Amino acid sequence: MSLTPLLQELIGALRALPGVGPKSAQRMALHLLERDRSGALTLAEALEQAVERVGECATCRNLSEQEQCAICEDSARDAGVVCVLESPVDLMAVEQTGGFNGVYFVLKGHLSPIDGIGPDELGLERLFARVDAGQVRELILATNPTVEGEATAHYIAEQLQDSDVNLTRIAHGVPVGGELEFVDGGTLAHAFAGRRSLKRSVDE
Amino acid sequence: MSLTPLLQELIGALRALPGVGPKSAQRMALHLLERDRSGALTLAEALEQAVERVGECATCRNLSEQEQCAICEDSARDAGVVCVLESPVDLMAVEQTGGFNGVYFVLKGHLSPIDGIGPDELGLERLFARVDAGQVRELILATNPTVEGEATAHYIAEQLQDSDVNLTRIAHGVPVGGELEFVDGGTLAHAFAGRRSLKRSVDE
Repeated sequence: MSLTPLLQELIGALRALPGVGPKSAQRMALHLLERDRSGALTLAEALEQAVERVGECATCRNLSEQEQCAICEDSARDAGVVCVLESPVDLMAVEQTGGFNGVYFVLKGHLSPIDGIGPDELGLERLFARVDAGQVRELILATNPTVEGEATAHYIAEQLQDSDVNLTRIAHGVPVGGELEFVDGGTLAHAFAGRRSLKRSVDE
Repeated sequence: MSLTPLLQELIGALRALPGVGPKSAQRMALHLLERDRSGALTLAEALEQAVERVGECATCRNLSEQEQCAICEDSARDAGVVCVLESPVDLMAVEQTGGFNGVYFVLKGHLSPIDGIGPDELGLERLFARVDAGQVRELILATNPTVEGEATAHYIAEQLQDSDVNLTRIAHGVPVGGELEFVDGGTLAHAFAGRRSLKRSVDE
């Protein structure tokens, strides 16, 4: 009653944003209309532009406005080391560490036969083509340590068993700064299975 | 580096939303681009439509798409009782109680000489005109119980001292369901000052 139809539509549309419920959406809509109409128009324009022009990189499937993303085009990066990730968010997380100088391949998902997501949907033929072309020395499988992520990593490893690329999987274990007491059993088991020797080997 | 310029623009624009920091904005932008592009376009359209077409009601200054808002046009509501509020959000809060059947007047702010907000900016001449025209029996001053809200209520009351309208202020006190222990001193003082007799008066 106290909300106009357009305001109701706007509140409904704002709920497309992750983590925004009916109450936040109402607060956002009123804030924009009462105090920041120019911000609202800027946001509308930014949304349209991004949807229209941000596509995916032809090489790595990361979000990109050009045919090739900035990372793939950067000649300072080592194109011989390819990190395989599930999503652009993961890519950003790795980029923010600043410690990785290779390139990426974004699967945009993981194998999930129930949802109809197979190797084709993940663009794996493109990844395998890069490996077959001999451009890749090491393939770092950094899919999530979930059942689906593990299965995806396993599938990729199986397919490349006969190639001479170096296949690695990121380490899973106790997070830095974490306490054993609060770490779940699966992680702890991983941490033990992946333990490393601290003793220098005799012939070193 | 890993973010395209348009994506960065979108993330910046999303921060116009109240309660959205850099991290949430990034998550929202990626969610929309990765998983809900149609939702993003719907939102852009809803923002533009709302900004373009939602104005204010000529009578009560509430948000409205028409000359008159739905509440002012509703003949079932008592136009003789006018509730004066600071913002449309307050109006929605009162409407949601379902217990008020009068109409509203939205100040869209409070008196604040430092910010250059005087009686003109609050549209008070329109409110006084309604009172002078004799359409109003009771004026309920429901501005916020802040220094500025109280000052605004006081100013309105002063201006209407000579009119024969019934001026009231909403009660301030301990919230229902609240505990004395956790209520601040100002509220508690209000609650004592505004105490009501529970004894029926002798001549009742």
